Amino acid sequence: MKKRALVPLAEGFEEMEAVIIVDVLRRAGVEVILAGLRGAGPVLGSRDITVMAEADLDEALSQASGQPYDVIVLPGGLGGTHAMRDDQRLVDAVSAHAASGGLTAALCAAPLVLVRAGLVSSRIITSHPSVRTELSEAGAEVSGRRVVRDGELLTSQGPGTAMEFALALVSELEGPEAAQAVAEAMCVN
Amino acid sequence: MKKRALVPLAEGFEEMEAVIIVDVLRRAGVEVILAGLRGAGPVLGSRDITVMAEADLDEALSQASGQPYDVIVLPGGLGGTHAMRDDQRLVDAVSAHAASGGLTAALCAAPLVLVRAGLVSSRIITSHPSVRTELSEAGAEVSGRRVVRDGELLTSQGPGTAMEFALALVSELEGPEAAQAVAEAMCVN
Repeated sequence: MKKRALVPLAEGFEEMEAVIIVDVLRRAGVEVILAGLRGAGPVLGSRDITVMAEADLDEALSQASGQPYDVIVLPGGLGGTHAMRDDQRLVDAVSAHAASGGLTAALCAAPLVLVRAGLVSSRIITSHPSVRTELSEAGAEVSGRRVVRDGELLTSQGPGTAMEFALALVSELEGPEAAQAVAEAMCVN
Repeated sequence: MKKRALVPLAEGFEEMEAVIIVDVLRRAGVEVILAGLRGAGPVLGSRDITVMAEADLDEALSQASGQPYDVIVLPGGLGGTHAMRDDQRLVDAVSAHAASGGLTAALCAAPLVLVRAGLVSSRIITSHPSVRTELSEAGAEVSGRRVVRDGELLTSQGPGTAMEFALALVSELEGPEAAQAVAEAMCVN
């Protein structure tokens, strides 16, 4: 059975981050549900690029009760992050997913959603430099590394690390050889 | 006056490549016209992500007669590349733009559009490895480098080199310091 990833999409998302995550996971054969917080349809990103959400978050979350997602991946962008952090459905889902040991990944500013979900205290977390103080104040051990894995949490810094972050997700879900094959086809190295 | 970039969008485009180009150029203050070959509206990419074209290619090209674009940038993806290569309006515009010395950039498979526009003979070109033979047969001197500038032509290899390619465009249009500032904000290094 295919691995399944949930990627929420909220207005103000960082376009490169969301698209790199979805594209790279699909190249590796992962089924990705790109779910809009306000339903399926167009969502405006932080640099005025509009991407279509393919599913409604409510429906995507209700599917999770039957077959849990293998990973929830949160793209950054400050506007999108704030919208995700203020969405109680999503925060509850992230909290429950991580509590059951599910891989939970956040890029750029999106580790702030992990803060709201009560997940970062005493955990090693990396993020965009602009939100490090908030993470630190929430009890995280803030790292300056580009991609960090601590238990079920995988975090990364921004658009410039999104490719490494997405390939780390592929490595977790499909194995390092799959990640290497996808990287080669994309001319990463 | 702002620098202006034309980025055509055709069904089957590589999503990361198109979005990285547009997002990075906008971060640098460049005005980007994301123009659909079939008009403004949704365009389906190679990995089933739909991005909205913001303008119609006809209108975008007719604007060029008043104020030429500072650059035309062609994202890859084999389906999108073939659609661009078979669009005589676009091929003529690329040919005329390059003939007048305008910066002309192509990523991944998209250098095949430069072939159709009659631009690659005896020129140093890089591309996705999968289209090197076609470039070579058209008389290009094929390079294995990640980003190559030869005169008015700037070419690059694929999603994994898209960030370097986009930053090279920023460096050409806005200067190396602007490129460095954008790279830092994105956590590229």
